[in-house]
Amino acid sequence: MTEINVALIGHQFMGKAHSNAYRQVSKFFPGKLEPRLKVICGKASKEELEATARQFGWEESDPDWRRVVERKDIDVVDISTPGFLHHPMAIAAAEAGKHLICEKPLANTLAEAKEMLRAVEKAGVKHYVNFNYRRVPAVALAKQLIADGRLGEIYHYHGAYLQDWIMDPQFPLVWRLEKKYAGSGALGDIGAHAADLAQFLNADITEVVGFMTTFIKERPLVDAGPGAWGAKGGRGKGKVTVDDETNFLARFKNGSAGVFESTRFAGGRRNYNTLQIYGSKGSLAWNFERMNELEFFDRTEAGAEQGYKTILATEAAHPYVGAWWPPGHIVGYEHTFVHAIHDFLTCLEKDRMPTPNFRDGVKVQAVLDAVERSAKSRGWEKVKGS
Amino acid sequence: MTEINVALIGHQFMGKAHSNAYRQVSKFFPGKLEPRLKVICGKASKEELEATARQFGWEESDPDWRRVVERKDIDVVDISTPGFLHHPMAIAAAEAGKHLICEKPLANTLAEAKEMLRAVEKAGVKHYVNFNYRRVPAVALAKQLIADGRLGEIYHYHGAYLQDWIMDPQFPLVWRLEKKYAGSGALGDIGAHAADLAQFLNADITEVVGFMTTFIKERPLVDAGPGAWGAKGGRGKGKVTVDDETNFLARFKNGSAGVFESTRFAGGRRNYNTLQIYGSKGSLAWNFERMNELEFFDRTEAGAEQGYKTILATEAAHPYVGAWWPPGHIVGYEHTFVHAIHDFLTCLEKDRMPTPNFRDGVKVQAVLDAVERSAKSRGWEKVKGS
Amino acid sequence: MTEINVALIGHQFMGKAHSNAYRQVSKFFPGKLEPRLKVICGKASKEELEATARQFGWEESDPDWRRVVERKDIDVVDISTPGFLHHPMAIAAAEAGKHLICEKPLANTLAEAKEMLRAVEKAGVKHYVNFNYRRVPAVALAKQLIADGRLGEIYHYHGAYLQDWIMDPQFPLVWRLEKKYAGSGALGDIGAHAADLAQFLNADITEVVGFMTTFIKERPLVDAGPGAWGAKGGRGKGKVTVDDETNFLARFKNGSAGVFESTRFAGGRRNYNTLQIYGSKGSLAWNFERMNELEFFDRTEAGAEQGYKTILATEAAHPYVGAWWPPGHIVGYEHTFVHAIHDFLTCLEKDRMPTPNFRDGVKVQAVLDAVERSAKSRGWEKVKGS
Amino acid sequence: MTEINVALIGHQFMGKAHSNAYRQVSKFFPGKLEPRLKVICGKASKEELEATARQFGWEESDPDWRRVVERKDIDVVDISTPGFLHHPMAIAAAEAGKHLICEKPLANTLAEAKEMLRAVEKAGVKHYVNFNYRRVPAVALAKQLIADGRLGEIYHYHGAYLQDWIMDPQFPLVWRLEKKYAGSGALGDIGAHAADLAQFLNADITEVVGFMTTFIKERPLVDAGPGAWGAKGGRGKGKVTVDDETNFLARFKNGSAGVFESTRFAGGRRNYNTLQIYGSKGSLAWNFERMNELEFFDRTEAGAEQGYKTILATEAAHPYVGAWWPPGHIVGYEHTFVHAIHDFLTCLEKDRMPTPNFRDGVKVQAVLDAVERSAKSRGWEKVKGS
Repeated sequence: MTEINVALIGHQFMGKAHSNAYRQVSKFFPGKLEPRLKVICGKASKEELEATARQFGWEESDPDWRRVVERKDIDVVDISTPGFLHHPMAIAAAEAGKHLICEKPLANTLAEAKEMLRAVEKAGVKHYVNFNYRRVPAVALAKQLIADGRLGEIYHYHGAYLQDWIMDPQFPLVWRLEKKYAGSGALGDIGAHAADLAQFLNADITEVVGFMTTFIKERPLVDAGPGAWGAKGGRGKGKVTVDDETNFLARFKNGSAGVFESTRFAGGRRNYNTLQIYGSKGSLAWNFERMNELEFFDRTEAGAEQGYKTILATEAAHPYVGAWWPPGHIVGYEHTFVHAIHDFLTCLEKDRMPTPNFRDGVKVQAVLDAVERSAKSRGWEKVKGS
Repeated sequence: MTEINVALIGHQFMGKAHSNAYRQVSKFFPGKLEPRLKVICGKASKEELEATARQFGWEESDPDWRRVVERKDIDVVDISTPGFLHHPMAIAAAEAGKHLICEKPLANTLAEAKEMLRAVEKAGVKHYVNFNYRRVPAVALAKQLIADGRLGEIYHYHGAYLQDWIMDPQFPLVWRLEKKYAGSGALGDIGAHAADLAQFLNADITEVVGFMTTFIKERPLVDAGPGAWGAKGGRGKGKVTVDDETNFLARFKNGSAGVFESTRFAGGRRNYNTLQIYGSKGSLAWNFERMNELEFFDRTEAGAEQGYKTILATEAAHPYVGAWWPPGHIVGYEHTFVHAIHDFLTCLEKDRMPTPNFRDGVKVQAVLDAVERSAKSRGWEKVKGS
Repeated sequence: MTEINVALIGHQFMGKAHSNAYRQVSKFFPGKLEPRLKVICGKASKEELEATARQFGWEESDPDWRRVVERKDIDVVDISTPGFLHHPMAIAAAEAGKHLICEKPLANTLAEAKEMLRAVEKAGVKHYVNFNYRRVPAVALAKQLIADGRLGEIYHYHGAYLQDWIMDPQFPLVWRLEKKYAGSGALGDIGAHAADLAQFLNADITEVVGFMTTFIKERPLVDAGPGAWGAKGGRGKGKVTVDDETNFLARFKNGSAGVFESTRFAGGRRNYNTLQIYGSKGSLAWNFERMNELEFFDRTEAGAEQGYKTILATEAAHPYVGAWWPPGHIVGYEHTFVHAIHDFLTCLEKDRMPTPNFRDGVKVQAVLDAVERSAKSRGWEKVKGS
Repeated sequence: MTEINVALIGHQFMGKAHSNAYRQVSKFFPGKLEPRLKVICGKASKEELEATARQFGWEESDPDWRRVVERKDIDVVDISTPGFLHHPMAIAAAEAGKHLICEKPLANTLAEAKEMLRAVEKAGVKHYVNFNYRRVPAVALAKQLIADGRLGEIYHYHGAYLQDWIMDPQFPLVWRLEKKYAGSGALGDIGAHAADLAQFLNADITEVVGFMTTFIKERPLVDAGPGAWGAKGGRGKGKVTVDDETNFLARFKNGSAGVFESTRFAGGRRNYNTLQIYGSKGSLAWNFERMNELEFFDRTEAGAEQGYKTILATEAAHPYVGAWWPPGHIVGYEHTFVHAIHDFLTCLEKDRMPTPNFRDGVKVQAVLDAVERSAKSRGWEKVKGS
């Protein structure tokens, strides 16, 4: 067993999920490489950061990410910060020869994303962008069924990622609602996941037409600065500079049609990341809120016996599941991160490039970019590079 | 096309459903025999009954059922009255040589039911007892799958028929809550359906143990007499003499185990007639509130692809459905009665005995009888005649 | 009680559904006016048509619709034919002073639809276009909740009407696949329903962007001519001239965002007419395949108790339901037509204009027209007249 | 922060789940007490056990549980072994003054369970029996709703715990199928969970009637001895000495009626632990396979708006959830163990007795005992001590 020294930048929601993954991976997926939780970085007071380090299981903490990414003893840099920081961090880490794990979307603009890709390719390091929903066992099973031709020729893809966490007009102007930090709103945060799943399961998106809407245009300022990423409103109001909702139509390289919804204003949809795929031989449907279930319709069955089947993807024969519990004992959200780190470590061990990597991240960024252009041009826009 | 003259006794809920079936059957299932809605009987004023006759489509009305069942021009007598009247009506009709359709349960006691069976067999007429849920397309499909061996050896059967219409303590003492009229409460009204479906889909029940509960022991009297079958409470209170809920365990002839629930006190379950059957090769589940759907689990499929499949039983290839609408256009409650009358007419035409007939009705009555005995003896009781 | 004499043009699927509605309406919704099934027209042999008339319950049949619409004894003309015939029939009937019931979409083009509207308004007759899904009890309940402000300000509407009946490439070139008869494919047939429900429940659509796809471009010719509307393929192939699938984005007058899917290539979706509406105070979801259920999410409830509630719309307190069966006894597809005729007769009786009427039909046609223009222009198009 | 030294006995399925809980608890529920994973015991080779210790995160391993429970440096002994070992282990540990965590069912017989209770009470230690499903957030929410009177007077309880893992006749005779090791089969393994949930959510069970069935009476012997707890069949066959399925009816102290199913022969039900509770004011339904969802029906709502509501129990306002992820990000099976250890540590810290404790364990054992007696007597049996 060899230890891989990890530095994690980010100590909020994603920092917590990534830390858990590093702690858990060897317990359930023992392998030749084992991550060592070396150091965590984040924008917080020394005391806060140190407390977080202890709770999350990191040996050290350091508020200065530039110093950390250049440490000789670090093998992997994990970027779990707001989008505007991905670019400088990834480039610095790549230049320092570190393998990279980066949260999605890869960057705030297509140009940044491409520069990041160039940097990691130039450095020759391994790179991974964390579209974690690919690692849901039921989604991985969907991929297998599609790869096995069980859906035949694909006709239609619908991806809808709906949430409702900012519907209250008093919810404050957190960094995710400011373009300079987040790049975009629903589009980049959750639409990006929908686009990646579509390109993973179906095919590259070649052109799009869409529109972006902001329902609540001003919100209370967050008490502290944006770096605090808090969620309590204080004095004064600020302008929301991102989309609350973005919908788009798409054409895929394989000729199929796509329809995408992403919104933070769908009451009662807490984290409703859903997809349906329809092909000549079969159909699939999935919904994150019941993430362990995959709906499969097999058109090749006898007519009177056709129907959507709910596969509870908790069998040892299903991807990732053998490492966990017996059939019927479901797993949850954070398991996707454990699976991702497991696959990443396997790639390091076997000298393979992880997927999705920065190249896939650029592809998603190109879709987001085309949607934003289309929202302005009010017409179809080609996805650049597709 | 030959006309079959029908006399219907009963002008309430069941009278309405049966009338509809007679009117509709030839429109959707044209055959050699066509019912003619000759005369309707019922306990109501002459004016009321005549108005009902007009609305339901009957040529005549007559408050005197004894006169009607002896009319020379009547071919079929349909008994849709409270249970205590089934026995005298069926015997009189049989003696007059009429074919018989009778609502369930066949009678208020096993002894009565057996006498009715003897009478129809002696008379040599056709007889049918209306356990109408057998005629739901999805249930008929279930029967086909079981008959085809798709479930293998049966291990377990669960039938639960839950309602909530009398939960309000102010709901009055209608005839269904009086033993002298209804025989029993939840047991005979809905438990009888559950027992019939079980014996239809699985096997005869050989022994049972159960208990009966009455949660609300007194209720407001109905304004008019019990014959009015109204549902508004008036002055005074009366004793509830039937069960609000009855549960029982059962052994089937084929060695499988049975569990039955029937209650009128399950809030939110409006007409929740459900079943699950588990066998060595497959399982089935059905719920009347989604009556067009059948859940099928096929254990012979590859492990990683197993799952409960929802078959929307609206294909032309499914029982009865071809007569109605294209796939995906669901049917409702009253269609089961149309199917029943269609099958009954086909049996008349081809000189076959309908099913379920009075023999099946006696079998259900024997189960109800054993449950009632068990509730008193506090032990297992054999089903007589099984 | 007064009789209203009806002439029905069309003897296929819609003819069957309309005939049933005329026969059933007075049995369940007795009123002052009662339809008399006077004469049915259709393109068939005299014998076939006469047999259909008998089975469907019509007094007479006549292959010549022009003669029929001018008969003095006819009060209402019901047009249940392919779309290309709606225009001449409706105008002739209006000129003859007949009240009109017309199947959807109102016409094959916006221009035709507008002429039809002018004709009926000039004639001063009652007119109704049969977007029947408005008459599903659960949908009517949705409308009530929205009208009562239970959803607050609407943000997002998703309408998806998915079917799969022409996925087999050997399915022949029926009239619904020829532009000259049907006007369009998925768009006009099922997308029209989705557009009407959206405008009924939410608001007028003001602009759209969409695209149309034909996956299977050639199909076997139908054995007989198109008038036979058969479904068996014969010699030779013909060109499919309509869309297999059309998707579009929309803006509503109230500022909300719309996303629409309509396809005949969604395996396992037999008649999957679905909608979700999200507002500031609540959300609704509905799916025709479980047409008796309405999902309602109330954001004003306490946070820890929020959730989507499945209302089984079978209570007497729900629209239309009191006329049918007790709670929990579901209704089916054809009931929507009975409700429509009931409401139509009530409007005749009270001298009110039915809804949706030809004005609403034009509004839907304007949306279809804008979608077709957008598919060509590849950009957003205004809905004319909105 | 104070460390609590834990010794875990058991290194199979439960050992894995408990180990995870000890590792995770302080990461998500930081408190004053933190468990230290001191030593793991188990029946395995020294090498195997040592490897397990490393993988599960324990400092040491020791095959001799008797030595371990007497170690001065151990504060808590956790018994995660087959049932026949609970009794000697618990008594030895109690006599050594250790706090106790014990897997369910508490023992193989009621007599053993009572002795264990006496031992821990005499020793004055804290004791907890791991009916872990009480710690599912949705179940804890159910408990809150019931405690708040939202269900009113309870009428009916249905608990069904269905699995299918031993349906294959070639599945070997593992220890869970031998009475001397497991005490009973479906009854003690899963029926015990159903009984505990019922007594937790509803009331004590006072009398029962039930029957036990063994469908497959002989099975291949396990290759190695029973201690190996392997799952591959070898030469020869052995007798199955436990029940494959046990069903029973029950009366609760509060007058409500109970129906219980537990089987390992329900195809497609992987870990289908379900319950429904019906009361005068509301109803609840829950199913472990969708463990994050609670169905709630509120009879006090307006009639036309009543319906079962699916509460996704992933809000910070729901029990335990605040420690994990944002709304809509579901948790899985193993989280119930983390919650249990968190609550146990809190009780140690605050000197409170955990629940469910051995007293509750005895109560469940008394129900199992009554069911076994009833299966022999073929009549109702009182639950001893209730």
